[in-house]
Amino acid sequence: MGEVKRIGVLTSGGDCAGLNAAIRAVVMQAANYGWEVMGIHHGTEGLMRQPPEAKLLVPDKVEQWLTLGGTLLGTINRGLPLDLPLDDGTIRDRRLDFIAGCRELGLSAIIGIGGDGSLKILHGLTDQVGMPFVGIPKTIDNDVAITEQSIGFDTAVNIATEALDRLHFTAASHDRVMILEVMGRDAGHIALHAGIAGGAHVILIPEIPYQIDLVSKAILARQAAGKAFSVVIVSEAVCTSGGDIITQTQAFGECRLGGIGQYLAQELTRATGAETRVTVLGHVQRGGVPSPLDRVLASAFGVEAVNLVARGEFSRVVTWQQRQVVSVPIEAITASCRTVDPEDTLLKTARGLGICLGDC
Amino acid sequence: MGEVKRIGVLTSGGDCAGLNAAIRAVVMQAANYGWEVMGIHHGTEGLMRQPPEAKLLVPDKVEQWLTLGGTLLGTINRGLPLDLPLDDGTIRDRRLDFIAGCRELGLSAIIGIGGDGSLKILHGLTDQVGMPFVGIPKTIDNDVAITEQSIGFDTAVNIATEALDRLHFTAASHDRVMILEVMGRDAGHIALHAGIAGGAHVILIPEIPYQIDLVSKAILARQAAGKAFSVVIVSEAVCTSGGDIITQTQAFGECRLGGIGQYLAQELTRATGAETRVTVLGHVQRGGVPSPLDRVLASAFGVEAVNLVARGEFSRVVTWQQRQVVSVPIEAITASCRTVDPEDTLLKTARGLGICLGDC
Amino acid sequence: MGEVKRIGVLTSGGDCAGLNAAIRAVVMQAANYGWEVMGIHHGTEGLMRQPPEAKLLVPDKVEQWLTLGGTLLGTINRGLPLDLPLDDGTIRDRRLDFIAGCRELGLSAIIGIGGDGSLKILHGLTDQVGMPFVGIPKTIDNDVAITEQSIGFDTAVNIATEALDRLHFTAASHDRVMILEVMGRDAGHIALHAGIAGGAHVILIPEIPYQIDLVSKAILARQAAGKAFSVVIVSEAVCTSGGDIITQTQAFGECRLGGIGQYLAQELTRATGAETRVTVLGHVQRGGVPSPLDRVLASAFGVEAVNLVARGEFSRVVTWQQRQVVSVPIEAITASCRTVDPEDTLLKTARGLGICLGDC
Amino acid sequence: MGEVKRIGVLTSGGDCAGLNAAIRAVVMQAANYGWEVMGIHHGTEGLMRQPPEAKLLVPDKVEQWLTLGGTLLGTINRGLPLDLPLDDGTIRDRRLDFIAGCRELGLSAIIGIGGDGSLKILHGLTDQVGMPFVGIPKTIDNDVAITEQSIGFDTAVNIATEALDRLHFTAASHDRVMILEVMGRDAGHIALHAGIAGGAHVILIPEIPYQIDLVSKAILARQAAGKAFSVVIVSEAVCTSGGDIITQTQAFGECRLGGIGQYLAQELTRATGAETRVTVLGHVQRGGVPSPLDRVLASAFGVEAVNLVARGEFSRVVTWQQRQVVSVPIEAITASCRTVDPEDTLLKTARGLGICLGDC
Repeated sequence: MGEVKRIGVLTSGGDCAGLNAAIRAVVMQAANYGWEVMGIHHGTEGLMRQPPEAKLLVPDKVEQWLTLGGTLLGTINRGLPLDLPLDDGTIRDRRLDFIAGCRELGLSAIIGIGGDGSLKILHGLTDQVGMPFVGIPKTIDNDVAITEQSIGFDTAVNIATEALDRLHFTAASHDRVMILEVMGRDAGHIALHAGIAGGAHVILIPEIPYQIDLVSKAILARQAAGKAFSVVIVSEAVCTSGGDIITQTQAFGECRLGGIGQYLAQELTRATGAETRVTVLGHVQRGGVPSPLDRVLASAFGVEAVNLVARGEFSRVVTWQQRQVVSVPIEAITASCRTVDPEDTLLKTARGLGICLGDC
Repeated sequence: MGEVKRIGVLTSGGDCAGLNAAIRAVVMQAANYGWEVMGIHHGTEGLMRQPPEAKLLVPDKVEQWLTLGGTLLGTINRGLPLDLPLDDGTIRDRRLDFIAGCRELGLSAIIGIGGDGSLKILHGLTDQVGMPFVGIPKTIDNDVAITEQSIGFDTAVNIATEALDRLHFTAASHDRVMILEVMGRDAGHIALHAGIAGGAHVILIPEIPYQIDLVSKAILARQAAGKAFSVVIVSEAVCTSGGDIITQTQAFGECRLGGIGQYLAQELTRATGAETRVTVLGHVQRGGVPSPLDRVLASAFGVEAVNLVARGEFSRVVTWQQRQVVSVPIEAITASCRTVDPEDTLLKTARGLGICLGDC
Repeated sequence: MGEVKRIGVLTSGGDCAGLNAAIRAVVMQAANYGWEVMGIHHGTEGLMRQPPEAKLLVPDKVEQWLTLGGTLLGTINRGLPLDLPLDDGTIRDRRLDFIAGCRELGLSAIIGIGGDGSLKILHGLTDQVGMPFVGIPKTIDNDVAITEQSIGFDTAVNIATEALDRLHFTAASHDRVMILEVMGRDAGHIALHAGIAGGAHVILIPEIPYQIDLVSKAILARQAAGKAFSVVIVSEAVCTSGGDIITQTQAFGECRLGGIGQYLAQELTRATGAETRVTVLGHVQRGGVPSPLDRVLASAFGVEAVNLVARGEFSRVVTWQQRQVVSVPIEAITASCRTVDPEDTLLKTARGLGICLGDC
Repeated sequence: MGEVKRIGVLTSGGDCAGLNAAIRAVVMQAANYGWEVMGIHHGTEGLMRQPPEAKLLVPDKVEQWLTLGGTLLGTINRGLPLDLPLDDGTIRDRRLDFIAGCRELGLSAIIGIGGDGSLKILHGLTDQVGMPFVGIPKTIDNDVAITEQSIGFDTAVNIATEALDRLHFTAASHDRVMILEVMGRDAGHIALHAGIAGGAHVILIPEIPYQIDLVSKAILARQAAGKAFSVVIVSEAVCTSGGDIITQTQAFGECRLGGIGQYLAQELTRATGAETRVTVLGHVQRGGVPSPLDRVLASAFGVEAVNLVARGEFSRVVTWQQRQVVSVPIEAITASCRTVDPEDTLLKTARGLGICLGDC
């Protein structure tokens, strides 16, 4: 791979903690090979603009990026379609813009950091235009199927747990039911981990249909045992519904996203008589200083992604398996996102701790 | 005061960080005088119940309370009226219940921890029934007029600042306007302090009428200077309105409490084209582990409150002035709550830093 | 296992964060089986005393233990020998004391939480006396060979990383070389993880012999590149020596434990002319509030350890593998402690980031 | 002051948290006046070099400095003497270098950030050469006499308290006496505040002569009450001594700086039989991310310092009094450093909490 001289790095999809640490590692390891790195702004959109939005990244510039949250390259959640309808009725093939951008920047490979959706799209695009590509998985939801851990998850769990720790105190002071709504669009990993770590009494995740009556019963049982307060954590993807049993993931489009916390508050107040308060944690879960584990993971991913480029092993994704970085073919992530498995240890852990999972 | 043998301690109003540290200090200093302390549950309501809800607090029991958030005695925001209409049409004078409770517990003085409203009510009640009383000021809003600092404020500012730090990263990553709605029912101290500490670009507080157009202009000016993102912090008490200029405190009853964040998001999106996201921090601001400063303040207040009892200096409140604890007559807090003064240094500081205060 | 009615739980060896979370999980899951749990004080020593030191643990008692550092049962690093020479020249067989303690407490199984050494000793002892035993691995060093992660490691890495983050600022302000000496008696996992996470420029671990001249050269190279400061992290187990190359683990007995930081400071000042400062982090690494990951791990371990007892699967240790709890025979830990493997991804990561590992 | 066009800002003495926030505020407020700011490197030394070491600071450059610890301008603890003996036997008057540096940079005023010593030296120097000067007080020791709070103190107290919180857990787990040695060269403010906030059982500060026997007695009394562990915090300036009573500040030159922790460990082990462990917190106390309070203080100081320049009020220092910034003549700090007053509230607080101050 002596011919590789300049690689591009970009971030795609929602931001999270650790992205800058990964970019930093890419730049530093690339320098060991004598390569240049262009940091592309705003994901692939920046590459398709004319002129492409990018800047040269050198080790001195990125040295202090290790502890910075978010992405200094910028990112966008949703870009324009590749086949873009123009006002004059024609279709603009933005793959050509992509090729033009790569050429103008002199890129011979691209390292993309994104969630499962972003990585698949990026691979599809680079594959079509023949641009070598390596992927790095990130997502606070930890739902990328092929890696035990993705960049951003540990930090998000830390922030959600910290919020639960705080809500515990105020719940107990006022004999209230405090409800924390956390991120997790398709999978309940954040709620499950933070719920166990933060001593929640109820954890609702999209993978487990819940019955509101059973949740109320769990609150009432605590009250009957002299514990007038309870703490509930719920994934934003959990659905409200008129019926008793709700399967969330399928019904995702229909449910009032972000409204589950308020819905629970109303129902639990009605059924238990307890005062309830809701906190929707929102974007503070994304933006923190990355945890040490996320910094280590991001650094290891960034270095190994460059090694894959050096070895010419393209169309692969770096993953974390048994505390080591291993790469797998990018096709491995075409499967659906990794939700919480019914056999997951942590579900048993939660039940063992007496936590109500909605089907209690 | 040799005749004092047993004092009661209670917490009143919304919980905050540092209450347990204050209770602990009361218990420990009382032990130095050879007194017993009864911890009264759920504020004065607990004292009025039959039997009164209270437990003996000894130093060994409270030793580890220093770092615990909230109040282990429990509290309630709003109790029953002192003249309680009964079903049979008569009025129950709950002052008599209060006296009965004090007698049953054998109390010779009460130390109450509360905000300005609670302390005034507590003093009014104890004064009527002739029970010696000393007050300790707490409130995350820091709006008790007679003390430079109240228990719970520093921790609340820390939590709000931490949230701003996190929102900064994600705002910059996505070129968004992130809006953080924080507590502060009558005064903007939390938003002003956290806004300066957290590098906010806009700070809206109830003391300063804002013009939404000027806020939009500030966001647009940043965009024009190449800074596509902004961070806004706003007190929950700031009002939405159809008009241009709004005075908040007066209009407090009318405004959609808690809705100001959403309102700003809509207006700023409309006027600036920026993506906006809102985080309503809610009760996580109350319940944290108390900051070292709050622990020191609470400890100093608790010890001195007992000293006042020992010296027979009743109907007084301990306050923090020039890093020392000084007591003042409780009548000093009959004035309205301490809002942000128009001449406050920090307003000048905010303007000096280029922060828009809504009248920019 | 219907005959199991009462199990004992104990902690052994050095304390760490997450022990109480594990004890809590044991108590809660045991309650689901209708069992009682005795918390044994001061490890096996407490069991051998007359009367044995233990208290009944019920869910209500341990509910708030989740976030407390250390072990509320107490622990000791080194106990008396099992064959204890008495003053009268005879030998006391303390296995008999152990049996007596178990009988007096009515224990039908013991769950022990300890490092590899403690678990082996515990198993040897319980095996000899015929007491069913299940082990839970803990150690801030993460050197228990059979589990990807042990209780306490994540928290220790977090604390060490936080210290590095802080030293970075002061190093840069004063153009100094700051040296952080961290725990890690036999393995360099803490230094390696925290060093990568905290952006150290030099990481010295016992598994990699270092040449002091190469370390100096790395500092000088930074100075030559205009970076007058450097941050160094070193495991306490790394040896000073008169020679150039030192193999640490073997020489552990000879080296001045705890002196490596000072030694490096002297040598680096001499060789590079830089001002140096040393921080020996010490026991603050052990005692923190457990990180969310350590709480999850400890909870999962505690629940599953009880399940093993329920299934009669004794002489086993719970382990963390691929984000799941799996149990293995306790003999699996008879191998030597897990040091940093020469092929470990993180060594490559460190080198990729330009970090000097002493052989640079 | 229309003639002011360019001001210099520099940091002097030991670094601390909040310096960059102050520099940032200076730059931003200066921009409001249309002035330029030169950031001078390495304190006055940088100004005296040829060419002077400085860079132009503009708002965009410093915008993100708010949360960064230390000083990005660099600082030195001890510079060369103003009358510098040269090799040829002559004396170089470095005041001339200072004047030359100011002239070359085109400075019309200097804002210096430093402790009481640094500010006095800076004022003396600028006064001699006729350069207008305004000072901003910083010191983690909080011993600048004229201000209630200096930049860096709150963060240092937070870090020391956090360490105590952690040591508590491990002390209790192992029945040990944990000793934390903290900074505080001339005054015990850090130890006193952190000791109260962190629940220490013994606090030793240089202002209060201690008797080692009384300290031992306090530990023994806890043991007798069934509390086998204790936590001790001690200022580095507290002296070891052969005698019983030691006055520290005076004897500062003689005592083994940094050795007091080890000395206490030996003595307390000998006298109480307890296991002891020492942590010397060292430079991690300086380098943290500034606390919100330090950021607010630094921002307020920086803005007001520029206002003083604008109003031509030179030879003054900004101070924090009753939550407002007020300036005082720089001569006000010629008095000795502010040690802990014998009448300080917090001494009474500590005694009230049963904390041994060495004279217990």
